[in-house]
Amino acid sequence: MRAFMDRDFLLSSETARRLFHQYAKDQPIIDYHCHLSPEQIAKDQRYSNITEVWLYGDHYKWRAMRSCGISEKYITGDASDFEKFRAYCACMPKLIGNPLYHWSHLELRRYFDCELILNEQNCDEIWRITAEKLSQPAMSARNLIVRSGVEVIGTTDDPSDSLAYHAQLKEEGFAVKVVPTFRPDKGLALHKKGIRDYIRALGEANGVEITDLSSLYKAYQNALDRFCALGCRAADHGLDTFRFVMPNEYHANEIFTRALQSDGKDVGEEETALFVSQMLRFFGKEYVRRGMVMQLHFGVLRNPNDQMFRAIGPDTGYDIIRGTPLTAELARLLNYLDHYDGLPRTILYSLNGAENGAVASLCGAFAGGEDGVPRVVQGSAWWFQDHLDGMRAQMRSLASLASMGDFLGMLTDSRSFLSYPRHEYFRRIFCDLLGQWVERGEYPNDEQALRALVEGVSYKNAKRYFNF
Amino acid sequence: MRAFMDRDFLLSSETARRLFHQYAKDQPIIDYHCHLSPEQIAKDQRYSNITEVWLYGDHYKWRAMRSCGISEKYITGDASDFEKFRAYCACMPKLIGNPLYHWSHLELRRYFDCELILNEQNCDEIWRITAEKLSQPAMSARNLIVRSGVEVIGTTDDPSDSLAYHAQLKEEGFAVKVVPTFRPDKGLALHKKGIRDYIRALGEANGVEITDLSSLYKAYQNALDRFCALGCRAADHGLDTFRFVMPNEYHANEIFTRALQSDGKDVGEEETALFVSQMLRFFGKEYVRRGMVMQLHFGVLRNPNDQMFRAIGPDTGYDIIRGTPLTAELARLLNYLDHYDGLPRTILYSLNGAENGAVASLCGAFAGGEDGVPRVVQGSAWWFQDHLDGMRAQMRSLASLASMGDFLGMLTDSRSFLSYPRHEYFRRIFCDLLGQWVERGEYPNDEQALRALVEGVSYKNAKRYFNF
Amino acid sequence: MRAFMDRDFLLSSETARRLFHQYAKDQPIIDYHCHLSPEQIAKDQRYSNITEVWLYGDHYKWRAMRSCGISEKYITGDASDFEKFRAYCACMPKLIGNPLYHWSHLELRRYFDCELILNEQNCDEIWRITAEKLSQPAMSARNLIVRSGVEVIGTTDDPSDSLAYHAQLKEEGFAVKVVPTFRPDKGLALHKKGIRDYIRALGEANGVEITDLSSLYKAYQNALDRFCALGCRAADHGLDTFRFVMPNEYHANEIFTRALQSDGKDVGEEETALFVSQMLRFFGKEYVRRGMVMQLHFGVLRNPNDQMFRAIGPDTGYDIIRGTPLTAELARLLNYLDHYDGLPRTILYSLNGAENGAVASLCGAFAGGEDGVPRVVQGSAWWFQDHLDGMRAQMRSLASLASMGDFLGMLTDSRSFLSYPRHEYFRRIFCDLLGQWVERGEYPNDEQALRALVEGVSYKNAKRYFNF
Repeated sequence: MRAFMDRDFLLSSETARRLFHQYAKDQPIIDYHCHLSPEQIAKDQRYSNITEVWLYGDHYKWRAMRSCGISEKYITGDASDFEKFRAYCACMPKLIGNPLYHWSHLELRRYFDCELILNEQNCDEIWRITAEKLSQPAMSARNLIVRSGVEVIGTTDDPSDSLAYHAQLKEEGFAVKVVPTFRPDKGLALHKKGIRDYIRALGEANGVEITDLSSLYKAYQNALDRFCALGCRAADHGLDTFRFVMPNEYHANEIFTRALQSDGKDVGEEETALFVSQMLRFFGKEYVRRGMVMQLHFGVLRNPNDQMFRAIGPDTGYDIIRGTPLTAELARLLNYLDHYDGLPRTILYSLNGAENGAVASLCGAFAGGEDGVPRVVQGSAWWFQDHLDGMRAQMRSLASLASMGDFLGMLTDSRSFLSYPRHEYFRRIFCDLLGQWVERGEYPNDEQALRALVEGVSYKNAKRYFNF
Repeated sequence: MRAFMDRDFLLSSETARRLFHQYAKDQPIIDYHCHLSPEQIAKDQRYSNITEVWLYGDHYKWRAMRSCGISEKYITGDASDFEKFRAYCACMPKLIGNPLYHWSHLELRRYFDCELILNEQNCDEIWRITAEKLSQPAMSARNLIVRSGVEVIGTTDDPSDSLAYHAQLKEEGFAVKVVPTFRPDKGLALHKKGIRDYIRALGEANGVEITDLSSLYKAYQNALDRFCALGCRAADHGLDTFRFVMPNEYHANEIFTRALQSDGKDVGEEETALFVSQMLRFFGKEYVRRGMVMQLHFGVLRNPNDQMFRAIGPDTGYDIIRGTPLTAELARLLNYLDHYDGLPRTILYSLNGAENGAVASLCGAFAGGEDGVPRVVQGSAWWFQDHLDGMRAQMRSLASLASMGDFLGMLTDSRSFLSYPRHEYFRRIFCDLLGQWVERGEYPNDEQALRALVEGVSYKNAKRYFNF
Repeated sequence: MRAFMDRDFLLSSETARRLFHQYAKDQPIIDYHCHLSPEQIAKDQRYSNITEVWLYGDHYKWRAMRSCGISEKYITGDASDFEKFRAYCACMPKLIGNPLYHWSHLELRRYFDCELILNEQNCDEIWRITAEKLSQPAMSARNLIVRSGVEVIGTTDDPSDSLAYHAQLKEEGFAVKVVPTFRPDKGLALHKKGIRDYIRALGEANGVEITDLSSLYKAYQNALDRFCALGCRAADHGLDTFRFVMPNEYHANEIFTRALQSDGKDVGEEETALFVSQMLRFFGKEYVRRGMVMQLHFGVLRNPNDQMFRAIGPDTGYDIIRGTPLTAELARLLNYLDHYDGLPRTILYSLNGAENGAVASLCGAFAGGEDGVPRVVQGSAWWFQDHLDGMRAQMRSLASLASMGDFLGMLTDSRSFLSYPRHEYFRRIFCDLLGQWVERGEYPNDEQALRALVEGVSYKNAKRYFNF
């Protein structure tokens, strides 16, 4: 029996161990897709207890606690920080097989030098140990980032954002590149109340009075210029569901201005779909022009629980997997963008694992590189797929249907400065997979080739693809 | 090489063996979802040969025989009992990898002390051995139940049923709790010929003349009172496919009375969907009031083969997996019930394994417990998923996305008194999974935590959730 | 560590090794579904270099190269044969986990006695070795087939084909049975420009002037007679997507004649669906009458990339997996054909692995054999599923839900005379699966039963099912 989470955690063969310890472990981290707060980095945020770090914003943990029957009081409610931590500890033993079990213990070990098991009995001691550690300067946001070997952080930012904190970080010359990622989803939700206010703010932030499609274009172009000036290399679109409707600028303009007048009330689903398709054409072209990467993630049904949405808002652990296959609609979109020379480097992430194969095959149909870099690629397993089985399934599917050697590797999608061990977790799983293939005689034990695979997937492929 | 089906069958590690033999094996069985005949229990049914037990009613075996190219004559036709058994024996060697291979051999061993392999050569001898055993009183329905360590049986019953056999069993004080489960599917199929007769029978059984929605409500309320008086703790709805249509009592009443007048002829699909949505709101409230559990199973396409349906009726092994994802529609239903405070403890079972992840995530969005018990949970893999890979996939997915420690464990869905080894089969698979995680260092070797997991999933969680 | 691709490649247990080497390896090959060119067989085609064999027509390799970011110039463009081979070699190390990695090395070993690893360093030497070998008569099309132990080849042929090469081969008495397979997809695409010319050619090839549905029927009947006279035992329909619309001969005739007049322009999607449903009824009857097998494959979205379709045409590696589940529509079709006694032996192949379970269950609902041979069966994993995980998943799903002992085994779907090691690959995977089950004690170590399974799935089942 292997000891719990020892040095060779998840590495079940000699080859896996060699690859991880020699080539994977010390690669820098390019966390190209996360939700870290630029403000907290700029201000070098400190934390007074483990609940602040772990439970104030991590909706993965909230969902798991609800699955354990924990009352909302101890999740997002008015229980004390310690009570919340104790409730989380009490859940832990039940979360066997859940990635949170591993992530939480990895974080405890890597950042707090604490090898205790998370459960009710150890709760007090862990609370004490972590509080003490958190009081040290090494646990500030910036120090956590630096200690974790991070080279690049791509945050997620609205086009109406001033990017003041990014500017500050750049000016100060913080050792780690913190760059914005362009996420224009809010302005695409034409049918939602509040769109008028949002568009006004978008215009103000980008020096344009937005009254129609062409002034909207201008505002986004200005925003993209501001983003790119601060190192932005990518956009991110959460398509959730998506239907391609043949773009038409005249109609898109008419729909947009109507949405502005009615604050979204007079706009239907079909019209929003047309508008989104039109805007994706526009964005695609702008991304191509700037050499940016377009990320599309889909397969999510957001906010299915109205009561909790009204009570605590979006992104609180209530979103679910949308089972409906989307590849046919995405194929139409990619084809259309390609036709108008507006298909940038694109990463497709399905948050519904049942679509892994379809997505891999779709990427192949638009991979068409000219420079040794495939253009459209399948992204890693995250969110609902971010667990041992999900990552393994996504990697095995990608390898079976595309090129493992060109895989861009892991992202955290995290809001926490302690999430970097997820890269370690991913690299262990990846090296274990390679190890299996080699030890079973399914791939030659060729050190040079294996090293190239490990370094590529851990670090170099993302650096090259995003051009960081 | 491990001997076939030895003491440590399916238990591939020391930890798995320890957990199964020490903690799982002897837990009582709560078979909360089956199709056993209350009449046969009440009358303490006896059997004269193995075909009566195995092949008279088990459509899983019928489907497997058809897949082997066996003529219907030897399945549901007029061949003799022995001929049918011989045909089944002849199929067995081809059913490698099929759960029936394991179930059949387990039943032979556990109830007939017969370790022979099922095949054509051994057919005569097995026929003889099993006939002899069946002639003994130990093989009566009640004795089989008692010997198997069953604590509770939840049968499946129509609201128009008199429940006379349940009442008899209760009165007699049969050692095992046999309680009805409320299954109102027939009365929801408004568009089917025969609905008028059914509703009349429903009214008569429950002392109400049903003429409109409010008298229908009254009849169901009376039925629920009768069910609960006999220990009923749960309802079961086979939604097969489902579309949520915003409930409306006025329209539902109009549709219902029209269905009564036309015997289903004048009612369309959309109207049935509205009626079903309305009734689920009604049922949800009633279940909440009585503290009942609502089971929803879906992902089935029933009776696709018209010829065989006309020849031998429903539930004869012809139903298939419906591939269409349903989680989005179910999310709307749960949200609606929740909004009106009518969302009871609910178990979602997808019979399409491709929806495992989506269902687990949907449960998380409505898990919201107040009392340490999650409200909406994913049920076990049964029917089309009731096999080694299906159970493993469902458990791994549940563990990855929710709380394994709160899993309700296995049900048989069986019509046979010999099916209890399916609980043993499940527990072996479950303990093997835990053993793997522990032996690989993915979970601490913490005896107390593991014991709690094993006892919970084998027995205690269901007892608590259903409040048996 | 196992050496790369040694004698026991993929055989992880003693039992697996024994079964493969003793019973599987030397079974003849019935390659009942491929795209080999009858012309090349008749003319006993020779090749001057490895690029001609590997890269002139294999769109699996093209797709993989695109996934590696290789420019189209080196795939289907005007680079030299050697440059193309070098580009392929350069990709190979990145294709870890991809079936092409195994297929390519197997072919190199089995046909060229070359154990070099495919990569850029070895490219020149492999080019030289293979060119030398290809200059030998043993490497002609016919000799490759004979050396590979092939007994039957089922090519894929249009009803308008003269079948001249098949006739020549038959006349010459080529030792291997090369029979046509009836593939009438082109004539079903009523809505496509060019349908008028196609129908004219179809008529001419079959001695009928086609002006309406009944003359179309006649032409197809003549074609089927011609096909069957040359040994045809099967039809193949690529349904891609499919919607069953209740057939109606009057409407089908009206739609067909309109399509002829407008060359497809005036025909809508719904009308094509009705026409296809009607024609499948017609074909089903004709196949039943001739004892032919009907193959239906689905789950593909063709030609999503317009630009590349215009540049290099169909079947060039751009097709993708269509995620939409089709089993409900196929169930309606099978039910309809069955109703009119026009449901022949039918193989259902889903190219979307997420439908494995649904397809297996659908087959069970129409398996209904009378003669020990199931009528409707699930076909093997090919195209997008033709890899280690895809084959394992399809076999495990089939075993769980149907009868493994009746599985028809592998097909190549290949355009290359070097693809026969895919049968070896499949048999290794299959024997490994059996070995696992036996070694774990999940199936008895019964030599006779295991031998029957291996010989059946490798060879005998297909021979019996197709009646070769």
